[in-house]
Amino acid sequence: MNLTISKMAEGISPSPTLSLDAKFKQMKKQGIPVVGFGAGEPDFETPDRIKNAAIDAINKGMTRYTPAAGTLELRQAVCDKFKRDLGIEYTVNNIVVSNGGKHSLTNIFMCICNAGDEVIIPSPFWVSYPEMVKMANGKPVFIYTTEEDGFKFSAEQFEKAITDKTRAIVVNSPSNPTGMIYTREELEKITEIAVKNNIYIIFDEIYEKLIYEGEHINPATFGDEAKELTVIVNGLAKAYAMTGWRIGYTAANEKLTKAMSSLQSHATSNPNSIAQAAAIEALLGDQSEIGTMCAEYVKRRNYMVERINSIDGISCLNPNGAFYIFMNVKELLGKEHYGKVINSAQELCDDMLERALVALVPSEGFGIDGYARLSYATSMEDIIEGLNRIEKYIKGEA
Amino acid sequence: MNLTISKMAEGISPSPTLSLDAKFKQMKKQGIPVVGFGAGEPDFETPDRIKNAAIDAINKGMTRYTPAAGTLELRQAVCDKFKRDLGIEYTVNNIVVSNGGKHSLTNIFMCICNAGDEVIIPSPFWVSYPEMVKMANGKPVFIYTTEEDGFKFSAEQFEKAITDKTRAIVVNSPSNPTGMIYTREELEKITEIAVKNNIYIIFDEIYEKLIYEGEHINPATFGDEAKELTVIVNGLAKAYAMTGWRIGYTAANEKLTKAMSSLQSHATSNPNSIAQAAAIEALLGDQSEIGTMCAEYVKRRNYMVERINSIDGISCLNPNGAFYIFMNVKELLGKEHYGKVINSAQELCDDMLERALVALVPSEGFGIDGYARLSYATSMEDIIEGLNRIEKYIKGEA
Repeated sequence: MNLTISKMAEGISPSPTLSLDAKFKQMKKQGIPVVGFGAGEPDFETPDRIKNAAIDAINKGMTRYTPAAGTLELRQAVCDKFKRDLGIEYTVNNIVVSNGGKHSLTNIFMCICNAGDEVIIPSPFWVSYPEMVKMANGKPVFIYTTEEDGFKFSAEQFEKAITDKTRAIVVNSPSNPTGMIYTREELEKITEIAVKNNIYIIFDEIYEKLIYEGEHINPATFGDEAKELTVIVNGLAKAYAMTGWRIGYTAANEKLTKAMSSLQSHATSNPNSIAQAAAIEALLGDQSEIGTMCAEYVKRRNYMVERINSIDGISCLNPNGAFYIFMNVKELLGKEHYGKVINSAQELCDDMLERALVALVPSEGFGIDGYARLSYATSMEDIIEGLNRIEKYIKGEA
Repeated sequence: MNLTISKMAEGISPSPTLSLDAKFKQMKKQGIPVVGFGAGEPDFETPDRIKNAAIDAINKGMTRYTPAAGTLELRQAVCDKFKRDLGIEYTVNNIVVSNGGKHSLTNIFMCICNAGDEVIIPSPFWVSYPEMVKMANGKPVFIYTTEEDGFKFSAEQFEKAITDKTRAIVVNSPSNPTGMIYTREELEKITEIAVKNNIYIIFDEIYEKLIYEGEHINPATFGDEAKELTVIVNGLAKAYAMTGWRIGYTAANEKLTKAMSSLQSHATSNPNSIAQAAAIEALLGDQSEIGTMCAEYVKRRNYMVERINSIDGISCLNPNGAFYIFMNVKELLGKEHYGKVINSAQELCDDMLERALVALVPSEGFGIDGYARLSYATSMEDIIEGLNRIEKYIKGEA
């Protein structure tokens, strides 16, 4: 029997960060004392006020279909949030609520890409962007940043990458995997070029609440044209420790919003109704727990940055947001470790996991060689133990 | 500014059943005493045992990412359910859990269709099938059934529709919108042709628990080849009154399952973690509430079938499953009602909603003219009142 699958499906590889996470959780379950820096999710519990709102929704029987794009109440809460946090005016007709930020991004690419249309993705990038563009029959076009430039692309690089097939550029600030944030000045230049060339800015601000220095800037605040061309992607996973709940949302012009809403009405229908009720509480209730989480994240980051830069062979920049350190491991590559030459970040991370029981995400999946991503969404205790293991490994004592 | 959207997105219309449902709920909210036969969702509450399992999951902090295809525990529960209900052996590597049955279907079409590949869809069909195939760049090919044939297609019709582009046929039993079920003999003939031609059978059994006469048969039980080519779609919405929770699942061969799992890992990631925990309880806990619901549905169906066939100008078959009556309104068309000639089911349903405050779904969206779909997932009281209004309308007394 010839059980072929579609070319699109053939071209997709499973999410490397999610499969690492699954492998790590499996090892833990088996009782192996592995320490993980792989997590893309907060180690905090979903705050009680949000859990209680969900329990309340269950008890009230809010267990039925909602409008495909989300309840009116939640879409209004999202508008209120944009007004409060960024001063931007949206109506419910600009908002689609989806089954997580990934789903929001999938909707966007499906609704803007015709076959062969180009989407510019700055590297290093979050692993799913290129796969999503390919799923939508679009073509990912990469622009490459360097550590010297703080892993940020310039307006000139953007302009050079534009062709008559370019539909959009993805800007992720704060960034996964580098933790870098774009300044107002940088974003203004980028937006100017986008507007001049009629290119969508897909602005992924999922980590906006996790900023330790500097200010969160959103290009939709730069005037009417900029707002029309900016498609904001956000969600509740990172700011409210709600990864498993799966609530993401977009803010976009009405035409694109209507298209995404129609697509979603057939492709999946509404996201979980209970999570939607909880999301209203998350967005509009007491926001103080975000400050508590940030205070903890910044402590961990400070410790890690100092510690990493004190170990020979590895180094890192100081990230201003998200919860990732993008660690340079180039000095360790092309050299013998434990009787074997290690040539890539992938090989290094594999060997570290096996030999030192410490899980890092190699940078190849992010579109760049010679780095490893370390999440600090994990306890200080594990961070210290994990860095001890990394140090031992590098010193040949693992 | 030229804010074009993709051709795929341009080609999609919003789900007509969902938008009718939204309109109906909006009218109710405004205090208009409308009676609805539009609902595609049970009027029963999610059973308490399932709600309690969800609350328990929240309290236990099961609020984190799960594997993209669903937790191992839930996928095992799905396997146990298939073994218990149909005697089919699957492993967790055959199962993907998604954000509702719609999402499961979207995954399937995306993973089997290349551009221009054909998927055979018997009409009348559930509204989203053709849109989903188009989203996946496939081409829906329709075969038309008639009321005389019980709205069921024959093996001969299937065989004639096959071309070298045919990848799959969709079989929905019990059927939305007709409530018809396919017999073992009918499915055996269909499966034989599918196997001979190496064509996937996408077997949508979302209404399997709601069968009032006859037996639920699944082509995956017809031997190894049939099992390899059958992709089962099911979900918790209809059997367990869990529409808003959004849990659907597929059972398929390992190759296709792996492809769908990878796709989902990038496109949306896991479905809601709390709903997954609730789903285990739903599938494996006490199943007696299904019998209670069915007893109620059958009472309503019996009343409606008898009542409809007693009113001049409308008629219907006796559906053996699901919770829909597919009512023939052809005698009412092309005639004057309230001073205006009404030519289509759409016009008739619009006029009935406005004039008699009763909501029916016109059949055009299901790919056939001259019918209206009435759901009996609504109270007996509303059913009686709704049919009174329909009768008054037809008699010119509305």
